Amino acid sequence: MALCAASLTTEASAKVIDGKSVAKQIRDEVTAEVSRMKEAIGVTPGLAVILIGDRKDSATYVRNKKKACDSVGIISLEANLPEDSTEQEVLNYISRFNDDPSVHGILVQLPLPKHMNEQTILNAVRIEKDVDGFHPLNIGRLAMRGREPLFVPCTPKGCIELLHRYGVPIKGKRAVVIGRSNIVGMPAALLLQREDATVTIVHSRTSNPEEITSQADIIISAVGQPNMVRGSWIKPGAVIIDVGINPVEDSNDSRGYRLVGDVCYEEASKVASAVTPVPGGVGPMTIAMLLQNTLISAKRIHNFE
Amino acid sequence: MALCAASLTTEASAKVIDGKSVAKQIRDEVTAEVSRMKEAIGVTPGLAVILIGDRKDSATYVRNKKKACDSVGIISLEANLPEDSTEQEVLNYISRFNDDPSVHGILVQLPLPKHMNEQTILNAVRIEKDVDGFHPLNIGRLAMRGREPLFVPCTPKGCIELLHRYGVPIKGKRAVVIGRSNIVGMPAALLLQREDATVTIVHSRTSNPEEITSQADIIISAVGQPNMVRGSWIKPGAVIIDVGINPVEDSNDSRGYRLVGDVCYEEASKVASAVTPVPGGVGPMTIAMLLQNTLISAKRIHNFE
Repeated sequence: MALCAASLTTEASAKVIDGKSVAKQIRDEVTAEVSRMKEAIGVTPGLAVILIGDRKDSATYVRNKKKACDSVGIISLEANLPEDSTEQEVLNYISRFNDDPSVHGILVQLPLPKHMNEQTILNAVRIEKDVDGFHPLNIGRLAMRGREPLFVPCTPKGCIELLHRYGVPIKGKRAVVIGRSNIVGMPAALLLQREDATVTIVHSRTSNPEEITSQADIIISAVGQPNMVRGSWIKPGAVIIDVGINPVEDSNDSRGYRLVGDVCYEEASKVASAVTPVPGGVGPMTIAMLLQNTLISAKRIHNFE
Repeated sequence: MALCAASLTTEASAKVIDGKSVAKQIRDEVTAEVSRMKEAIGVTPGLAVILIGDRKDSATYVRNKKKACDSVGIISLEANLPEDSTEQEVLNYISRFNDDPSVHGILVQLPLPKHMNEQTILNAVRIEKDVDGFHPLNIGRLAMRGREPLFVPCTPKGCIELLHRYGVPIKGKRAVVIGRSNIVGMPAALLLQREDATVTIVHSRTSNPEEITSQADIIISAVGQPNMVRGSWIKPGAVIIDVGINPVEDSNDSRGYRLVGDVCYEEASKVASAVTPVPGGVGPMTIAMLLQNTLISAKRIHNFE
């Protein structure tokens, strides 16, 4: 399924949803707000990141987050713990950041070393500083009508933000979310539902994913299957948000691989009305939303509007 | 929409899902477990009900719950507060029941008087005693993969229990939940999702509810619209759980009204493979599940298996 071939006879006509440029815009907005807040009340938002072990990919993610904080004026703190740290040591750092008034957001980089209980560790983060929005209390509020979560998880929030900034109507539309992970698929479905879409979650046990997906006006795919969503899965004119970032072998690329989404981009761009590219679609939005959540948290804690 | 007429040419063929009889069975199971627990460790499960004001319907519900507790050997406590009580007075009762070791479940009868904040009051119930399962932390856990709620809300739990006891397969099936309330529709969708159904929530903003509903193998309807779901909405062979209990005028009835569901029963019984009647379907299951949740709570608190 890693390859997909576009029909030769049709021209690509879908609008490209430029996540890189929207993310840039949001970072500019955050920069302006951070500076306004500092001038008005002398407070700079702070994000604490806890990284355990020496996974290269995790280290890269953390470095990118720190760089992004720098670029918008948010202070970043980092705690690097060795792979063989105990759960208690991690909890001690969380507790310290929970109590530190200069920290408005706490992020524990996942995945954790195998000997640690993810649930125990994530639940220790104070809900007021849970900028990832993964706390079950947050998710519960997200699911419930009339309740408001303190934070919306960054990646699904980025997906919806792209729809908003491109003026895509959501209310009353059919939406299909492919994938039901706690960090993307499920909260993305809840967000679409909150905006009055009619939402179906398609997952690994769905017997006819193509048929269901092809009824959708909006598709958000977050499964990690390269090129799974083919042209035939897409209703003409649908809008597609592709969260997948999958490496596939490519001998033409100097790294030996390139990144593709869950959606066969070449085919989608001939059927859909708008589609996010990979890379440069949802990817840059996640960090932008993390910065926004950290700002929101600092504003709330300091009662600054 | 209050009337629905069945075709004259087809015979009713759907199996009747007898909620009354399943509820009876569950109450017998609870009775046996309550008595086993009492003999083994000398503990009797206790349910505290708080009723504020003098709404007749609420008083009836509370009376029925107390009767049901009696019938299975669960101790029931009741706090009746006047309509003009303050929020603080209600919170004091909740706090007392939170601390009372003989109370394993606390239930605040809704709706509350208008001057009270439902969220403040419901959130005050200790999550370990929230037998209604409405706490957002519970709902969050229900939504998340790999997490377990302490309690599942009674009515949606009753719907799924009916499917289980009638051997209806859920995994991989298309399910449509009509209605997205916090107490039925939304948690019912999350429960179906947990059992690997492919779930769509149809609601007031859905543009083509009939078309979507007619794709479902399982329909759970909880909207409170008499006879809204007609025969044409139903895929032949589908299984229907009708949560609606709607009074409609009926001059032939001595009360001047009768109760009908959200689903046109006469039509459904000719198209579906199985359907719950109203009354006698989901209704009796709700209280049975409340008794089960109270038992589960007492067992958990006393570590009794």
